[in-house]
This record gives sequence, structure tokens and C-alpha cells, in this order.
Amino acid sequence: MGAFITLEGGDAVGKSTQAAALEAWLTGRGETVLRTREPGGTDLGVAVRELVLHRRGPVAARAEALLYAADRAQHVAEVVRPALARGDVVVQDRYLDSSVAYQGAGRVLDADEVRRLSLWAVEGLLPDLTVLLDLDPRIGRARRADREAYDRLEAEADDFHDRVRAAFLALAEAEPARFLVVDASLPQEAVQEAVRAAVAPLLTR
Amino acid sequence: MGAFITLEGGDAVGKSTQAAALEAWLTGRGETVLRTREPGGTDLGVAVRELVLHRRGPVAARAEALLYAADRAQHVAEVVRPALARGDVVVQDRYLDSSVAYQGAGRVLDADEVRRLSLWAVEGLLPDLTVLLDLDPRIGRARRADREAYDRLEAEADDFHDRVRAAFLALAEAEPARFLVVDASLPQEAVQEAVRAAVAPLLTR
Repeated sequence: MGAFITLEGGDAVGKSTQAAALEAWLTGRGETVLRTREPGGTDLGVAVRELVLHRRGPVAARAEALLYAADRAQHVAEVVRPALARGDVVVQDRYLDSSVAYQGAGRVLDADEVRRLSLWAVEGLLPDLTVLLDLDPRIGRARRADREAYDRLEAEADDFHDRVRAAFLALAEAEPARFLVVDASLPQEAVQEAVRAAVAPLLTR
Repeated sequence: MGAFITLEGGDAVGKSTQAAALEAWLTGRGETVLRTREPGGTDLGVAVRELVLHRRGPVAARAEALLYAADRAQHVAEVVRPALARGDVVVQDRYLDSSVAYQGAGRVLDADEVRRLSLWAVEGLLPDLTVLLDLDPRIGRARRADREAYDRLEAEADDFHDRVRAAFLALAEAEPARFLVVDASLPQEAVQEAVRAAVAPLLTR
């Protein structure tokens, strides 16, 4: 059996950069790596995403959560589990912790219910390691370089992203054995080192 | 508040015929009736149905259940609840009992889990009355007039439909206050009379 590693965190915390660096490092060590992401890791997922994003009318909150859970179910059944069965290392950008953190922050649906829904969708598959790239949302926003005037909307957005960050940290605290929390304001190389140190033991199994 | 009436049962038991007759009777009594069906009662539902039926590769069992639950969530939020809030009588062909009975008969997913999933999708909305049109599947098959030679595949199909029928009857037994079980082999007029007798008290609220 391979290893299942997920990267989590808010927008612009460096998940893609770290995933690419981790893939290169793992490949250099002779591992077969599958890099994937949610939502949209299968063609069914792409279609579901299109449905949610491009529908004319509003999508009900529970319908949206169920559609994303369907995407996740298909992705795990079709992509992730077969890769793990082959012995690959799966490096995935976002997984169920993102659903839980964003729902918890959005306060429309109950976060625990969203977690249960996701776990049912994937028949309980949890990552061997979840790297939480933790960053003050204001730094993330500056990184995105969308430097518009700071207005009320932006302040509300910051408030939302603060809640997302707090939700991720609470998830990490609840499952310390699964999570590695890394300060994403550190230099990239330092973040990479921290990730590698946590991944290495998974490869010697 | 209006009344929510669902019609359930296997294929070719006469659900559409009875729904049409019920609608005509209700309209004649001055009720505003919304006739609808699952899956596919909203444009999101139609798109979901297209997705499941016309995808090239296989759809994972849980992904399919989640997609149908998403369709149901949208349908209830967008169509059924607003109609009930307006005071309409909603007459719906198939609802969550169909999901539970067919899943239970198919034995891929746990029927109780499918029921919980549906109830979460619709925020617990149960019909005021569920009419179960009960019929021996062999009579239903004869009605469909697909009179091919009786072969092994057909015997297996009969076995499956027997399990669906038994699952529906078990659901009715578990919730006698919600269900009306009608012998669908009776003449249509007798079935209609039984349905009307159960619906009438809902209208005097």
C-alpha cells in the first residue's frame, strides 16, 4: 500500500508550490507519485463542478454539499484507492478537511455533518498525513497581489478567511497524529524541509 | 401549509395514472396542485440525471447515491417547500422511500444509510401521506407487455423486483401512520377511492 498525503490551508498559502516540490522530491527517491486535486479530479468531478458553478439559478446549500461529496466519492473510488493499491504516493491538493473548514467558516451547514457526509462518500478513507499550511489571511491576500483599496467587503472577506484558518487549526488540534501544521510564512525551503521530515517515515513502511 | 403526498411502488404499478387521477380530483375540489417527480424535477436534477446515465465510465455507487440525493435536496428546496408554503397540494411520483427500497433490494449500499442521506438532503421533510401501490412484479411485467420468452435474466429480474416489493412493504409497516398500502391489482376506480379516502382528511386541516 502506498501513502496518502493531502495539503490543506486557505487560498494562496502555497499548496501548489509545495505539492510540486514534494512530488519532485518523492520522484527523486524512486517513488511513483500521483498528484491530484479536488474538486475536479475525474471527468465526473469536472462535470459536477461545471454544474455548481455555471448553473443559472441558485444551488441549494445541501445540494451543493452533496454534489461535492459525489465528486469526492468518485475521485476516491476511481483515482485515489487504485493508486494506493498500486503502491503509489498520492499527493492531493485539498480533501475533506477543506470542506469541513470552509463549511464551518461559512456557517450555513453544520461542519460535523459535512464531515460525516464526506467520510461516508469515501468509505472512511483518511490521509496518512495532512499538511496544513497555516498563514495569516492578510499575507495570503498580499501574495495574491489583488491590491485593491481596502474596503468593507474586503474586511468581511478577511473575517471569513480568519474563520477558515481557525477551523483548519481546530481540525489539526483534534487529530494531531494525522496533521502537520507548518508556518507557511517561512521561506519555501524551510517549509519543504518540514514536509519532507514528516513524509519520510511514511515511505519506510 | 399545503399537503405533501407521494406515490411509491415498483415499475408499472400505476403511479402516473393514479397521480393524474388524484390531481384531477383535487383540482375539482378547488385545490392548487403541484405534480412533480424524482429524479429530474429541476434543471439541476435533469443535469444530474444526464450525468449519471450518460457518463462513459462507471459511476461509483456512493457517488451515484450522492448525486441523486443532491437532485432531491435541490428539488425539495426549489420546488416542494415553496409549493407547500403557498398552501399547494404536492403530488409527487417517487421520493426517498424509492431510494431506500431500491438500494435495499440492490444490496450495494446500506438502506439505512441511504435513508439518513436522503433525510439530511431534505432537512427531514417527510410526506404527510405516502401511497404505496403494491403489486406482484409478475403482474407489473405483464402490464408492461414486454412479453419475451421467460429466461434466466428475467427470473433474476423478478427476484430483484420481489425484493423491492418486500422492501417497500417493510417501510410501510415501519411507518403505518404515514403509509397507505393499496392493492394495485384492484380496478383503477377502487384504487382511486382508497387514495381519496386517505387524502381527504389532509385537506380539512
